[in-house]
Amino acid sequence: MKIFQQLLQLNARKRGFHIITTEVLNVMPQIAEIKTGICQVFIMHTSASLTINENADPTVRQDFEMYFNKAVPENDPDYRHDYEGSDDMPAHLKASILGSSVMIPIRNGRLALGMWQGIYLCEHRDYGDARKLVITAWGE
Amino acid sequence: MKIFQQLLQLNARKRGFHIITTEVLNVMPQIAEIKTGICQVFIMHTSASLTINENADPTVRQDFEMYFNKAVPENDPDYRHDYEGSDDMPAHLKASILGSSVMIPIRNGRLALGMWQGIYLCEHRDYGDARKLVITAWGE
Amino acid sequence: MKIFQQLLQLNARKRGFHIITTEVLNVMPQIAEIKTGICQVFIMHTSASLTINENADPTVRQDFEMYFNKAVPENDPDYRHDYEGSDDMPAHLKASILGSSVMIPIRNGRLALGMWQGIYLCEHRDYGDARKLVITAWGE
Repeated sequence: MKIFQQLLQLNARKRGFHIITTEVLNVMPQIAEIKTGICQVFIMHTSASLTINENADPTVRQDFEMYFNKAVPENDPDYRHDYEGSDDMPAHLKASILGSSVMIPIRNGRLALGMWQGIYLCEHRDYGDARKLVITAWGE
Repeated sequence: MKIFQQLLQLNARKRGFHIITTEVLNVMPQIAEIKTGICQVFIMHTSASLTINENADPTVRQDFEMYFNKAVPENDPDYRHDYEGSDDMPAHLKASILGSSVMIPIRNGRLALGMWQGIYLCEHRDYGDARKLVITAWGE
Repeated sequence: MKIFQQLLQLNARKRGFHIITTEVLNVMPQIAEIKTGICQVFIMHTSASLTINENADPTVRQDFEMYFNKAVPENDPDYRHDYEGSDDMPAHLKASILGSSVMIPIRNGRLALGMWQGIYLCEHRDYGDARKLVITAWGE
């Protein structure tokens, strides 16, 4: 078994859902050296998240942004944590609903994603910073 | 450390939540060879998902279907992605809320599930296809 | 590659969101022996869950409890599974929305958490028991 780890700092993105599959692959060419394994992508933040979803039609990502804005409303008067603005607490909640990591099997030197699957960066802040990811791949 | 990987194609299920723990175990007998490790189950689709929840009372799974249909409504006029019908975009959203993989520790040759835990296939489409899973187990 | 596994039984907590990062670290000192790896924390229950979120301001955890109580209401007359009280089925649903495990990269003998990230125990029952965790760390 071998294991590789890379840091990836993404350029700041606008609020919304963004496909980052190619950026992840580019920073971890060692996936090609693994016949059977796993690749984890982890985000070191609490107001942005990662998920796997449809990689083709951009309206899917627009609908994600629309849905999560309805499901996790801004300006709920019951929020106590609002120091950083109306997008602050909703960003934390969306981050935990969607999750801080994705785990993808490696098979024959490639990510075993389904035909329609891509990795999304979910940017929940109006003005999110450059986001730091840790990518770890292991197997044999 | 050793690592094993198996593909499992599940028969098409009706929309709803279905326990698949036994099917996963049957396709990965090598779990018995691992004293300490992890088993990941990954679904190669964006309109079905995996979760771990209560393995006994079937009304729990019925309540999951009821709840998620309320929480992620069909026919929201704000959806832009609706090519495949009213269950299309809600299926993508539910898939990301619940997640595309589960990770279960292996302990003494068995999945270290709690007494009440089972693995659910969450089928979010009215007529989902046979779903493909990748099961990977590693440890020593 | 080496792999370590520890059981951790948490004292019963009141309903809500609780930071447990230090308890996890204390039971797994072997993280210090891993230069590159992963640590998984798994909860063996279906009415409590784990997530990663903001580790500083306690109002964030209060807002989590407030939000999830609104998003997953008690006493929905459509619930069929309510044997154990009004917090029963909502606890199962919250557990699957938040998830039964977190996976954190290990880098240079430490968890590679971001500055603001901590591990939450999410206790969804009014009177949850002592909760059992399985912690597994691997790498080289």
